[in-house]
Amino acid sequence: MRAIGIIGGMGPAATVDLHAKIIAATGAARDQDHLRVLIDSNPALPDRNAALEGAGPSPGPMLGAMAQGLERAGAGVIVMACNTAHAFQGDIEAAIGVPFLSMIDATVDATLTRAPEATHVGVLAATGCLRAGLYQRAFAARGVTALVTQGDAHTRFMDAIYRIKAGDTGRDVRDILRAIAEAQARAGAAAIVAGCTEVPLVLTQEDVAAPFIDSAAALAARVTAFARA
Amino acid sequence: MRAIGIIGGMGPAATVDLHAKIIAATGAARDQDHLRVLIDSNPALPDRNAALEGAGPSPGPMLGAMAQGLERAGAGVIVMACNTAHAFQGDIEAAIGVPFLSMIDATVDATLTRAPEATHVGVLAATGCLRAGLYQRAFAARGVTALVTQGDAHTRFMDAIYRIKAGDTGRDVRDILRAIAEAQARAGAAAIVAGCTEVPLVLTQEDVAAPFIDSAAALAARVTAFARA
Repeated sequence: MRAIGIIGGMGPAATVDLHAKIIAATGAARDQDHLRVLIDSNPALPDRNAALEGAGPSPGPMLGAMAQGLERAGAGVIVMACNTAHAFQGDIEAAIGVPFLSMIDATVDATLTRAPEATHVGVLAATGCLRAGLYQRAFAARGVTALVTQGDAHTRFMDAIYRIKAGDTGRDVRDILRAIAEAQARAGAAAIVAGCTEVPLVLTQEDVAAPFIDSAAALAARVTAFARA
Repeated sequence: MRAIGIIGGMGPAATVDLHAKIIAATGAARDQDHLRVLIDSNPALPDRNAALEGAGPSPGPMLGAMAQGLERAGAGVIVMACNTAHAFQGDIEAAIGVPFLSMIDATVDATLTRAPEATHVGVLAATGCLRAGLYQRAFAARGVTALVTQGDAHTRFMDAIYRIKAGDTGRDVRDILRAIAEAQARAGAAAIVAGCTEVPLVLTQEDVAAPFIDSAAALAARVTAFARA
């Protein structure tokens, strides 16, 4: 059994959500049957989106240091509760001697398991994540086209994400995200990917007609299985 | 600003709950305005209740080691997401050079702020916590009598706690806890204390007519204020 280290804080509520999903995926009956989880939820991390737009310092060095700290504390596998920050996965992997499991890879695999015939999928992802091409490249490598938000729709999406980060998980925010997901489905998306960990804090499968893939749940399932193996 | 270290895993869901309550108590609008939180959720910890009944090894040494690890990782204040484990607070404090804030003290203070005229309060706490007299002594020092579960009522209470730990947060479990709280109110309790961190996972102020004090929320408020000071 490996202890799971979570690089978190981007945002804090999404970190809580990933932790809760790891506990649910473990499905233990007693405290003693759970996995050890170590978390560093660090708000001092430089803004990922700003860095990827060339408007701020890279969070890479601090992400590497956080991963090192988690490994030193006993983590045998590291994950990160933020899709966008996976643009700096190389900095993390260079800093540690234990495996890092990618949320992007776990989510793409979960999507193609749920929708194996998909040629197009909708991806709800933040500016930096799109700019870094994380989902577009990962889906393209599997022969699938990622439909992403653009223009006004992307502006509305990011406004919703920042409202969620500020604690607003109300109906209005959910309606904005649902409308964007519905537009992607109308444009041919066979599945909708919550490719930003704030999305599943308000949007769930119940809100979307197409198969809905929660990146936090996909990573929780993968890392729980890995830690137990 | 101090980083908050959480000794957790007793149980894991209660650890998630304390983390979520710290985020809510922080009330930040941006990721960058939150507090750093370090968590060690460690299911390998020996059973607290068994140890306090003389039926198992003490978790004290491991709690001290966990606290040390959190301090080494950067925590400037340590808390613990389990009331019963506060019976081993001495082991923790002996192991660290940073302050440890007691959930018991935070909860007693919050109770007497909410119900300043109380002569009797009801305490919903686990076997080991009662056996160690944590709440009875802390309330007695303030001139207040703690009414605690006994006999069949305590057996029903512990059955509910172990069901919550196994993931059952349904109505049946809530009804059991509500009936016990109502009996304490009828016996003269001016307030009901959720003195076990599993209790607020199912029971809230809405379920109880008397002032209801959630030990996780009380500690979250205290440690958030302390970490920011």
